[in-house]
Amino acid sequence: MKHIEAKGVYVIAPTPFVPDGKIDESSIDRMTDFFLKAGVDGITVLGQLGEAPKMTHEESVGIVKRVIARAKVPIVVGVSAPGFAAMRALTQDVMALGATGVMIAPPNTLRTDDSIVQYYKQASEAIGADVPFVIQDYPLTFSVQMTPAVIRRIATDNASCWFLKHEDWPGLDKISQLKAWEKDGSLRRLPILIGNNALFLDFEVERGADGANTGYCFPDMLVDVVRLSKAGKRDEAHDLFDAHLPLIRYEQQPGPGMAVRKYVMMRRGIIAHDTLRKPGASLSPTARAEVDYLMARVARVDPRARV
Amino acid sequence: MKHIEAKGVYVIAPTPFVPDGKIDESSIDRMTDFFLKAGVDGITVLGQLGEAPKMTHEESVGIVKRVIARAKVPIVVGVSAPGFAAMRALTQDVMALGATGVMIAPPNTLRTDDSIVQYYKQASEAIGADVPFVIQDYPLTFSVQMTPAVIRRIATDNASCWFLKHEDWPGLDKISQLKAWEKDGSLRRLPILIGNNALFLDFEVERGADGANTGYCFPDMLVDVVRLSKAGKRDEAHDLFDAHLPLIRYEQQPGPGMAVRKYVMMRRGIIAHDTLRKPGASLSPTARAEVDYLMARVARVDPRARV
Amino acid sequence: MKHIEAKGVYVIAPTPFVPDGKIDESSIDRMTDFFLKAGVDGITVLGQLGEAPKMTHEESVGIVKRVIARAKVPIVVGVSAPGFAAMRALTQDVMALGATGVMIAPPNTLRTDDSIVQYYKQASEAIGADVPFVIQDYPLTFSVQMTPAVIRRIATDNASCWFLKHEDWPGLDKISQLKAWEKDGSLRRLPILIGNNALFLDFEVERGADGANTGYCFPDMLVDVVRLSKAGKRDEAHDLFDAHLPLIRYEQQPGPGMAVRKYVMMRRGIIAHDTLRKPGASLSPTARAEVDYLMARVARVDPRARV
Amino acid sequence: MKHIEAKGVYVIAPTPFVPDGKIDESSIDRMTDFFLKAGVDGITVLGQLGEAPKMTHEESVGIVKRVIARAKVPIVVGVSAPGFAAMRALTQDVMALGATGVMIAPPNTLRTDDSIVQYYKQASEAIGADVPFVIQDYPLTFSVQMTPAVIRRIATDNASCWFLKHEDWPGLDKISQLKAWEKDGSLRRLPILIGNNALFLDFEVERGADGANTGYCFPDMLVDVVRLSKAGKRDEAHDLFDAHLPLIRYEQQPGPGMAVRKYVMMRRGIIAHDTLRKPGASLSPTARAEVDYLMARVARVDPRARV
Repeated sequence: MKHIEAKGVYVIAPTPFVPDGKIDESSIDRMTDFFLKAGVDGITVLGQLGEAPKMTHEESVGIVKRVIARAKVPIVVGVSAPGFAAMRALTQDVMALGATGVMIAPPNTLRTDDSIVQYYKQASEAIGADVPFVIQDYPLTFSVQMTPAVIRRIATDNASCWFLKHEDWPGLDKISQLKAWEKDGSLRRLPILIGNNALFLDFEVERGADGANTGYCFPDMLVDVVRLSKAGKRDEAHDLFDAHLPLIRYEQQPGPGMAVRKYVMMRRGIIAHDTLRKPGASLSPTARAEVDYLMARVARVDPRARV
Repeated sequence: MKHIEAKGVYVIAPTPFVPDGKIDESSIDRMTDFFLKAGVDGITVLGQLGEAPKMTHEESVGIVKRVIARAKVPIVVGVSAPGFAAMRALTQDVMALGATGVMIAPPNTLRTDDSIVQYYKQASEAIGADVPFVIQDYPLTFSVQMTPAVIRRIATDNASCWFLKHEDWPGLDKISQLKAWEKDGSLRRLPILIGNNALFLDFEVERGADGANTGYCFPDMLVDVVRLSKAGKRDEAHDLFDAHLPLIRYEQQPGPGMAVRKYVMMRRGIIAHDTLRKPGASLSPTARAEVDYLMARVARVDPRARV
Repeated sequence: MKHIEAKGVYVIAPTPFVPDGKIDESSIDRMTDFFLKAGVDGITVLGQLGEAPKMTHEESVGIVKRVIARAKVPIVVGVSAPGFAAMRALTQDVMALGATGVMIAPPNTLRTDDSIVQYYKQASEAIGADVPFVIQDYPLTFSVQMTPAVIRRIATDNASCWFLKHEDWPGLDKISQLKAWEKDGSLRRLPILIGNNALFLDFEVERGADGANTGYCFPDMLVDVVRLSKAGKRDEAHDLFDAHLPLIRYEQQPGPGMAVRKYVMMRRGIIAHDTLRKPGASLSPTARAEVDYLMARVARVDPRARV
Repeated sequence: MKHIEAKGVYVIAPTPFVPDGKIDESSIDRMTDFFLKAGVDGITVLGQLGEAPKMTHEESVGIVKRVIARAKVPIVVGVSAPGFAAMRALTQDVMALGATGVMIAPPNTLRTDDSIVQYYKQASEAIGADVPFVIQDYPLTFSVQMTPAVIRRIATDNASCWFLKHEDWPGLDKISQLKAWEKDGSLRRLPILIGNNALFLDFEVERGADGANTGYCFPDMLVDVVRLSKAGKRDEAHDLFDAHLPLIRYEQQPGPGMAVRKYVMMRRGIIAHDTLRKPGASLSPTARAEVDYLMARVARVDPRARV
């Protein structure tokens, strides 16, 4: 099975809402245009941070349709669900609309190597063996730990496995291991895009990751860091990355992190409101002032933060 | 808000499938008729053991419609979902069809008293403050522990809280505490129906539980035990219960338990097949023989097990 | 490495205390004598239910010394600890006193097959590769799931692995799998003694388990059930087991279970007090009355419950 | 009960080992001297990152004795243990040696507000109501979530509660809440020292935290940041902090983090070896090179990193 080469930045798109909680369609359009102009290589919609579980099936389909209508890059859709029926239903609808593939996170009850491998086998059968899927490896949130060997088994078992969204923590040596296997031929080509709000992007790319698949409020910076790093401009990549790190770290907080991201994207004019659907954190005035302060400090190095 | 009095046995209905995984509609009808004849006081559909997460929204609505068409007793529908949008959507559809109320389990991320209380408040607002809801208190599966004080807060905050499906383990003293509070007026009337496959039904009713809300393969036995116990026939209640306990225990195993239940219900002629949807355990020949042996032993005391 | 053949009943000994929490030495003696007279094949001290974590190192050593002084059967000592230093220290002291082997539970942070295998390898190295050890496979309490293949790897890696204390739930098919491997030679001899308060003892022995390693308050009944079952007297084994099952189930409750066990052993005259060390549950008067009622019902079949 | 005022930096001391795993006593001395010269206000020994669970009781006492012999600042000793007997034993020995107080983490089984409050009550009774204790609030590692209200209850119930080691994540609003209560009198004086490898030290001090209680490999930097921040030199504090943040983040990784810390402290000449006791991660050559690179970058701003 021939996959589109996953590399560069596949940005995780948030879902913009108007203040009463309805989906903000014009912000979806503006945000999609912004992503394309920023140079992203793909867009993932309905990830955890796209507040996917807060949407009905119809809303989910509507969002994907809207993004696909403008995007000229591959689209990944998060379809994780408590059961295969809902996963299959959403997959069929979004693939029919033109999505390139789907992302699947493991349910948090899996505790053995075999049960993880088996889950992805069954999920792939449920959605169709011809649908490219992304493994989401995010133990901090899903409580499921996949060794490199388990990931290799999933990739070997399923030709439709497209790439790995790597957000294990710690995770640097995992990338090195998988890339070493890819190099010596004991693992087929399996692109690795990193998540975890890019907290380790600098070294992850140096370890061999093919890019990022995350949603930090400056995806344009992610594009630059990956480009600089791949071009061998190590110090420049770190200089840019380090300037953002205080804000990256602030945005990575579970809970308020999503509110931070939307607040900055609103300040940058990318979306109209920083509304989260219930249940969702909102930022206190103190927290907003802290984010403002961090942005001002970023702006000393990166003019894009001057807003 | 005036609720239908919850008492006796609200049986948890499995979802019957034909061997290829499609919903078996004629078995739904036969099973519903059987429940009514067995003397149940209510029916809960789409609980965890109704394999609810394996159904699409449309299938869920179809099942509820079919049961309601024949049932002359209150119907509770499990609407637990990762987000409020899906929960609201299913609730609206099934209430429009004539359901009496819904059951809500807490998400497994809740770790503080306040977060549990807040969750039920938000869930109730999401589905509508006029929709009767059942608290599912099942820490073994959901990893959320509710103290009696937390349950009292939920009941006090939400007039629409209908009853407690109690399946904490250990749980006897919890029932005693809640019933003591109900008696001294520090808790409003809150019926308690017990779950956990009835493993402690005998003493739970003696502690003050109002009945059972579980799905053991002999719901007719549950009806009898509750009736005998409420009538003060303690030894008789225990004699009947104890005759079934070896099978109750066997059926209570997480994973194979659901396969055991369907297998026995198939042998009893209540449903046509013992099929589970994927991913679902199937019984080994050895396990089936063990269940057969247990049924034969039950039959020495309870003729209903002679099939 | 040649091991003592583990079979029959290795009873888990509680630790008796006097009401102020000090260790009750004369009850230790009486209890040890009772176990021997009951026909147990071995004794495990300082298991989870021996309240092991509540003891200092010195107290632990003292208890083991006292039991060994009277026992004429193999002694297993629970040495699970957060770190290898404490584990090694206790192991050395009790092996010097004449213990036969030790029992090790996995720390609840292990989440991958390799990490479990590696843990037992390191633990065995820490205590000494010549010290027989028992694997405690108890996912309900330790949150660690070991597949049959993982258990086989541990047994293969470590000649000093003595037997498996099996208390997975569900666990019947696991026994069948391991015993099938033992039979076809793909697993070396690995005795299986079952735990989980004997809740499935009846079928576990039929599936091939070599006996029980648990602490139900009637270990003499466990001895009889294993003997009857091994002798092919299936119905007799089940009849005796079923008579006790209502009490087994009651005693198996996490938390109050240990208080139930000590209360019954006190009523039977085996220990002097039913005291638990803090933090430990105590039985309400209602709970005691329930246990009394259960004992009276057991006594209708098993005269040993007439006390 | 009058407590020593906890403020500034209470550094968490690692335990230095020689390559064969024995305790490196001369490194303990050199490290203690370094801490004092760096201007720390207190020292915590035998925390999680002091590899406490890997020590025997005797070793633990020996380490504390050695540090106390040289230190002229308050000493806190981590005494968390699976049971109260071991906790009491270690507490008594180290208090007799001159420790100022102890630190207690909650066991990871606590799931309700009441159970957490009760645990600290019982722990305090076990160690003696006159022994100052520190609450360790670290949900990421211990899986126990304490609301501000729970912490207030613990402080109110126990006069011997000395300060809060705050390492919740996210945790900024928690500090604001507790400090607001302290200000309005609804909470007694309860110092807050922050942990989490100082990842949010910059804003945590601004929110009102009294200092840090963590073990980053540049405790001298922590001292400076707290001092600058408390002196109102906000930008200077952030400039220094941000220069270290890439390394702070790298060191904060669970698992390899401790190896990173020891490696840097070795390179700084504070300890002789970067050995961890088994089971403990070691750094790959690639990881060491990454740390070297990060130190070189820190050195551009902070000359102390030039080694």
